[in-house]
Amino acid sequence: MRVVVPLAEGFEEIEFVTIVDILRRAEVEVVTTSLGERNRDRELGKGRAADEDEDEVGTVRGSHGIRIVPDASIDEIDPQDFDAVVLPGGYPGFVTLGNDQRVLDLLRRMDGLGKHVAAICGAPSVLVKAGVVEGRRATIHPAGRGDLTDDQYVDDRVVVSGKLITSKAAGTAMEFALRLVGELVSEERMRRLAEEILVECEV
Amino acid sequence: MRVVVPLAEGFEEIEFVTIVDILRRAEVEVVTTSLGERNRDRELGKGRAADEDEDEVGTVRGSHGIRIVPDASIDEIDPQDFDAVVLPGGYPGFVTLGNDQRVLDLLRRMDGLGKHVAAICGAPSVLVKAGVVEGRRATIHPAGRGDLTDDQYVDDRVVVSGKLITSKAAGTAMEFALRLVGELVSEERMRRLAEEILVECEV
Repeated sequence: MRVVVPLAEGFEEIEFVTIVDILRRAEVEVVTTSLGERNRDRELGKGRAADEDEDEVGTVRGSHGIRIVPDASIDEIDPQDFDAVVLPGGYPGFVTLGNDQRVLDLLRRMDGLGKHVAAICGAPSVLVKAGVVEGRRATIHPAGRGDLTDDQYVDDRVVVSGKLITSKAAGTAMEFALRLVGELVSEERMRRLAEEILVECEV
Repeated sequence: MRVVVPLAEGFEEIEFVTIVDILRRAEVEVVTTSLGERNRDRELGKGRAADEDEDEVGTVRGSHGIRIVPDASIDEIDPQDFDAVVLPGGYPGFVTLGNDQRVLDLLRRMDGLGKHVAAICGAPSVLVKAGVVEGRRATIHPAGRGDLTDDQYVDDRVVVSGKLITSKAAGTAMEFALRLVGELVSEERMRRLAEEILVECEV
């Protein structure tokens, strides 16, 4: 099982990290991707000497100033190689994701291939923009309520509609991540994991 | 209000990020510190050209492979400048923190100055090692139960004992981080924040 998590500057750190940490605990392979490119420093002529960091992608800063090093660039991702794509929220991260043609293409291709597509907080609006919510149900951060029609919107903390999985905010990130394990791995694994890390919320 | 969060390789990502994200949302200044030093690449003679990254500290990898860029090195921290020190758990991160004399000294000095001292998951064992739990009550991850005496141990998700604040696991990180806001800022700010991000657990 392989999952790709695209990142943009201003991603929400709790949402991003909870998704990646919980999926990896369930032995799902997760590849985090930036919108940048490898070897950026070298391309920019900064003259770094050859060393182990040579082909790293640049860091990405979250909306609360935490900088992380993604695993790869989105340009290296082949949708065929993945079982799911999951978007974290955070401002302006989700807006940037929604304005990037590569992200919209990835979502459409994953959806077209029958893969899981998921998003939390403001990021379900990116799924709307990609056209993958049509005919399905979803939830979103209260501030983005207007991006979903009354037929689409469900006022739950996590909504599963076929292979579309959505959630609301940083405070629902744990339930969202555990639900991803439930859908991608098994209900049993999800329950066991929740118990192991002492999650008390209903999942 | 200023908080220092020391990090070692193998820190628990959800715990670390939830602490930092929630405190920064409450407008607390948080400085994340590695055990490494600035200019490591330059010191190692890797010949990086002068650029904006020149004086950065090295990245630190969490126990689930997420790499983050800390704000500073622990060598730069003056306990007088901070109101609290908070340790994330994660294996082997908390063991490394407990084996580092600078971390033990920081905890003792902060405690001696009457500042807040806090830890989650396995990391309360580091507080025990520093001698700052004596005469107080605390909690810890079930696997570390033996590190606390029966007089010290409290079986709650978050335990506040004077200025000592402890918690159990990744699944209690949100309650722990919100409680830090309650103690360092105000109960009102804590409640408002929990509501804003849609936290449903009891805090």
